[in-house]
Amino acid sequence: MQWVKVLGGVLGGAALLGLGIILGHFAIPKKPTTASSKEAQDLDLKLLESVLGQLDANRIRDNLRELARAPHLATSPRDEELVQLLLQRWEDPKSGLDVAVAPQYQVLLSFPDTQPNSVSVVSPSGEILFSCRQSEENLTGEQGGSEVVRPYAAYAPPGTPQGLLIYANRGSEDDFKELQAQGINLTNTIALTRYGGVGRGAKAINAAKFGVSAVLVYTDPADINDGKSLPNETFPHSWGLPPSGVERGSYYERFGDPLTPYLPASPSSFRLEPSTVSGFPPIPTQPIGFGDAQELLCNLQGSVAPAAWQGALGCEYKLGPGFQPGGNFKDSQVNVSVHNRLELKNSSNVLGIIRGAVEPDRYVLYGNHRDSWVHGAVDPSSGTAVLLEISRVLGTLLKKGTWRPRRSIVFASWGAEEFGLIGSTEFTEEFFSTLQERAVAYINVDISVFANATLRVQGTPPVQSVVFSAAKQITAPGPNKLSVYDNWIRYFNRTSPVYGSIPSLGTLGAGSDYAPFLHFLGITSMDIAYTYDRSKTSARIYPTYHTAFDTFGYVDKFVDPGFSSHQAVARMAGSVLLRLSDSLFLPLSVVDYNETLHNFLRAAQQDLAALLEQRGISLGPLVTAVEKFEKAAAALNQRISELQKSQPNPLQVRMLNDQLMLLERAFLNTRAFPEELYYSHVLWAPRTGPVVTFPGLANACARATSAGSGPAEWAEVHRQLSIIVVALEGATATLTSVTDL
Amino acid sequence: MQWVKVLGGVLGGAALLGLGIILGHFAIPKKPTTASSKEAQDLDLKLLESVLGQLDANRIRDNLRELARAPHLATSPRDEELVQLLLQRWEDPKSGLDVAVAPQYQVLLSFPDTQPNSVSVVSPSGEILFSCRQSEENLTGEQGGSEVVRPYAAYAPPGTPQGLLIYANRGSEDDFKELQAQGINLTNTIALTRYGGVGRGAKAINAAKFGVSAVLVYTDPADINDGKSLPNETFPHSWGLPPSGVERGSYYERFGDPLTPYLPASPSSFRLEPSTVSGFPPIPTQPIGFGDAQELLCNLQGSVAPAAWQGALGCEYKLGPGFQPGGNFKDSQVNVSVHNRLELKNSSNVLGIIRGAVEPDRYVLYGNHRDSWVHGAVDPSSGTAVLLEISRVLGTLLKKGTWRPRRSIVFASWGAEEFGLIGSTEFTEEFFSTLQERAVAYINVDISVFANATLRVQGTPPVQSVVFSAAKQITAPGPNKLSVYDNWIRYFNRTSPVYGSIPSLGTLGAGSDYAPFLHFLGITSMDIAYTYDRSKTSARIYPTYHTAFDTFGYVDKFVDPGFSSHQAVARMAGSVLLRLSDSLFLPLSVVDYNETLHNFLRAAQQDLAALLEQRGISLGPLVTAVEKFEKAAAALNQRISELQKSQPNPLQVRMLNDQLMLLERAFLNTRAFPEELYYSHVLWAPRTGPVVTFPGLANACARATSAGSGPAEWAEVHRQLSIIVVALEGATATLTSVTDL
Repeated sequence: MQWVKVLGGVLGGAALLGLGIILGHFAIPKKPTTASSKEAQDLDLKLLESVLGQLDANRIRDNLRELARAPHLATSPRDEELVQLLLQRWEDPKSGLDVAVAPQYQVLLSFPDTQPNSVSVVSPSGEILFSCRQSEENLTGEQGGSEVVRPYAAYAPPGTPQGLLIYANRGSEDDFKELQAQGINLTNTIALTRYGGVGRGAKAINAAKFGVSAVLVYTDPADINDGKSLPNETFPHSWGLPPSGVERGSYYERFGDPLTPYLPASPSSFRLEPSTVSGFPPIPTQPIGFGDAQELLCNLQGSVAPAAWQGALGCEYKLGPGFQPGGNFKDSQVNVSVHNRLELKNSSNVLGIIRGAVEPDRYVLYGNHRDSWVHGAVDPSSGTAVLLEISRVLGTLLKKGTWRPRRSIVFASWGAEEFGLIGSTEFTEEFFSTLQERAVAYINVDISVFANATLRVQGTPPVQSVVFSAAKQITAPGPNKLSVYDNWIRYFNRTSPVYGSIPSLGTLGAGSDYAPFLHFLGITSMDIAYTYDRSKTSARIYPTYHTAFDTFGYVDKFVDPGFSSHQAVARMAGSVLLRLSDSLFLPLSVVDYNETLHNFLRAAQQDLAALLEQRGISLGPLVTAVEKFEKAAAALNQRISELQKSQPNPLQVRMLNDQLMLLERAFLNTRAFPEELYYSHVLWAPRTGPVVTFPGLANACARATSAGSGPAEWAEVHRQLSIIVVALEGATATLTSVTDL
Repeated sequence: MQWVKVLGGVLGGAALLGLGIILGHFAIPKKPTTASSKEAQDLDLKLLESVLGQLDANRIRDNLRELARAPHLATSPRDEELVQLLLQRWEDPKSGLDVAVAPQYQVLLSFPDTQPNSVSVVSPSGEILFSCRQSEENLTGEQGGSEVVRPYAAYAPPGTPQGLLIYANRGSEDDFKELQAQGINLTNTIALTRYGGVGRGAKAINAAKFGVSAVLVYTDPADINDGKSLPNETFPHSWGLPPSGVERGSYYERFGDPLTPYLPASPSSFRLEPSTVSGFPPIPTQPIGFGDAQELLCNLQGSVAPAAWQGALGCEYKLGPGFQPGGNFKDSQVNVSVHNRLELKNSSNVLGIIRGAVEPDRYVLYGNHRDSWVHGAVDPSSGTAVLLEISRVLGTLLKKGTWRPRRSIVFASWGAEEFGLIGSTEFTEEFFSTLQERAVAYINVDISVFANATLRVQGTPPVQSVVFSAAKQITAPGPNKLSVYDNWIRYFNRTSPVYGSIPSLGTLGAGSDYAPFLHFLGITSMDIAYTYDRSKTSARIYPTYHTAFDTFGYVDKFVDPGFSSHQAVARMAGSVLLRLSDSLFLPLSVVDYNETLHNFLRAAQQDLAALLEQRGISLGPLVTAVEKFEKAAAALNQRISELQKSQPNPLQVRMLNDQLMLLERAFLNTRAFPEELYYSHVLWAPRTGPVVTFPGLANACARATSAGSGPAEWAEVHRQLSIIVVALEGATATLTSVTDL
């Protein structure tokens, strides 16, 4: 019996062991390996909340004080000091990033000479009766010093023309035509114009076409100060622009380094001859303050300017030419002496990278320019202060080892933006291939706080959803504790046929560094800021923009005391950044392009269809293309929903995300706008025609219906229509199930 | 004690159970789930072997007999019948694919009119002394019938010029200069030229520049028959071209539908006015047989043509102008009457898709054109016969459920290739976005067997390794049982500094449908065929090319009796296709670009550096760029080896494969060759300069050093150099670790 027992025991033991093995193998789920769990991981909402909680208003204020401590014009010693500051922050062992580098480009900039530019009233005998200020008034002790660059129009050519003064409103082509219609001989005149309406460079380009020999530009108090112009009504007594304040700016009509279009400006690169560059102002141009402009404008003779041309300088604006016979400037001319010079300079970008844990080859880019005109507290340091705070908080998590994003994050501090988005454009030229292959989105926060009333976001439609998600989660500054979203909708809203009443997202032009990312590379982009209560001001922009009065004290006292709006922008941008870098499915809602396409199509149908039909061009293919896109976008949305419910494998998610990422790229056509530089996005290129539709179609129709047009212009209309249809079909194919050609 | 025993038993049992659980859980590896095992699965070599074994020579022969049964000129009824045949095969329930579709484009073709084109010798009194044949001799009963299109030069304009005949060799610009140098007045002459040397259309374009009013083109027996020209030496007595045989062809100098460059030729598309198209022959042009050419050429008067211009028509070639005074054609002129007309026609592509199991959004494309000039047994049906056999074998596996490729496979039968790669080009225009995003490679098998001696592969360098792998595994036809590789190396070989003696891969021009894939889209491409023993023939191409004598019987008797070379090509193409679609890591060896770059660089250094330095242009940045590329490619290779040793997760493999796939794309620059259509690959665009280096640099240097050049031409040299450097840097970035910008 004993052996039976033993046998029984052994058998029983073996059975138990076997059962154990079976249980162990089948019943206890193996913990997934770190790799696969990491690959399936979605955005960690607790981590997101913690990050937003750590974004600190005081630190942003400290950053701003340091960044705006001194003027940091592009390539100036202080600009290079800030390069080092950024490198130091991003290389910090406790709060730095994985990599920080500061590559340089050799780019063509424009500076005033040591011999100052001048604008004078010269009597017939050659006596100087009046001279405009050559620099701004030193009101708070910050506006003096050699580092404050004198007001000038960058890229305006040197020259010393002299002639009778005329007033040309905003310097649009129509404005000069109006002057001609009034019988004024524009040849060899000096045109006084005001900022706004058309771009800076366009004023000089338009003027030159009419024989004008120099252009002066000033900021009218009606456009910037809600009419206020007296010293005691303006800075430092309010946020208003003081009479001596002058808006500097680039007068180059295009963007990127002017000598190396489509090529990164390496020292050895091919360069155009400066004389062959198109887009520079053709005649000397100089900006002046409204204090000086008043002296000139209020002394003009001639017909009274049209009502819409009148401003707030406290006199009736007349057109000229020349000064009133009864005044001090009788028979005098205006002399404009411009001594700007072009110079090849080394400009740095600073790049800071956090490598992605799962998809390191997918990049979420976040950038702002670093260079300013003077101290640049608002523009751009308010944005850089936010950038540094976001990178500090994320860098700290990274260095602690508690977090690494799914996708790579690339922080960028661009150089020489003020001269025409130069640092960012050269970057997109250098990394053209990899960015087109891998960039998920570009987030731009240039001026982070124009004013402290409300969020303002510009972007392509797919960013709407991620921006809304972020805005709903963050509390707006102010007493009533609304969400940023609920506050926003009070200021900017629209009725969407899909969503009802929602905040209104703006579109992207070429006002900051997002331009090359969107227009040249087709990367989904956005620009985030806090801005004005438009019921309280109609200012073109914050009043000290590009002047010596844009200082830390100005921000601290007038723009955002307490920095709570800065903090709100940091939280918005940080939240959008984390959502884009960490979400399993990219939070880009391609279906939100449907409204844009629908609106563009409707406008074309209402305002152009009859015209086109007369020429035998049908909108039918466009209608079909839009319908197909809408269906494909909806189907993709549906597929995402289904996949989210299941447990999709990482490759499935990746394939779908590739479709979302590449949609914007499919709208590019490098042959659509042969006269433009960089613009190739068939939905967002500049639109000059009056109909708010596809820009290529709108512009071609405007040209075809203008005087002197013929079959070639109508052929171009048809070509543009085909380009749009093909782009939509390509975009549809990108969204359609990947195996159906 | 009992309870102690019981306790001991229980504890022991528990321990055993526990041990079992532990062993079961940890010591026995869990079988990976189906999903993840599928994702990690590599090429199945047994399946590959089985597929190659099933590719049947007799079935290829049967396919060819059916395909070449009747003439199937693009858009003819028989062409459309073959569309249906392809659809039927690819929709077959037992051997079909997942999807088969036949989209159409509306494209501009050129056909002879019902009024036949003619070439006659006309006496001074207007008597017709001699007329060239209007169709080929019906030697085997297959060359007659209304479906055989009469010989013509597609896209040559109509017209009936008459003038003195001259002999202009191959019609190159130098040939016409030579005639001028000989004092011959070319104005209003008719130029007799022979095929070869320059492209078809170039002969007419060159001629027109010299005032010539029409061009005749014939095939000299020296160029096609190794000198043989007698009826009993040629088809049907040998594979030689008979005297009446005429090579048809497209005389359009570019490719794609001529009216819709860069746009898919949908019915509603914008179209150019035909009169504005550049690249059509400017003067009437007509091809004739060498029997007729002999009659004309051997009667010419004038100086004896240079030795290099002499041919095998059995007389001494003279230059003209006009005929010998002692002959029958004394004082006669030649009249050329061309009645070609342009016509918009619907041309079909046929696409057959096998959806990928793991990465359906990665496409391996395999195509050939379907249209022929006449029966087109060799061109293109020998390729289509192979295509159908490969798709049958794979389709059968698919329908049985035993196999589905990792990536999607797209089979294509292109329309209207003979008129200028039209079907394939329109396809690349329509699917521009998705193909750029997703296409892994394009395999072209047009003429599969030119002759039965050896493999011949043209492709971009990354395909070399996969082609070699396939060629080593397949037995070549013939008695000595060599591998295709070992046979190949006997005919075409070179010494590689990396690999030693290897078969020599050719480069891709624009001779078949791979052109838009490579040049326009930057998709890694190759063309696979069996071809001549060059020690036995110097024929330009197989003798009946584009004539009515290219029939099934011709192939069966002369080109590949037994179809073993067809089978070898099928196995080669099938193996390459499966390796590309099923391998875990894409079998594209980017490191093999190093030799190309090195050779291009060395040529530039040897032949251009001194010249460039005189103009202050340094090759230094190019040297650096090539070195960096080489390092990055080597590092990537290293990384692949390491990953292959580990168990890489599917996302890691995907990221790496994306780098391999996108490398070729990074060499594109749409602004590099503004005068060309579609060409944008900076390494493979057409090179006209004499130095075998980067084409943009070679061409720009050739222009800059030619007569009348100035600073603008030297600026273009520098621009081209910068474009190449930037493309290399972009390609390097694509290969570099994905997180290092």
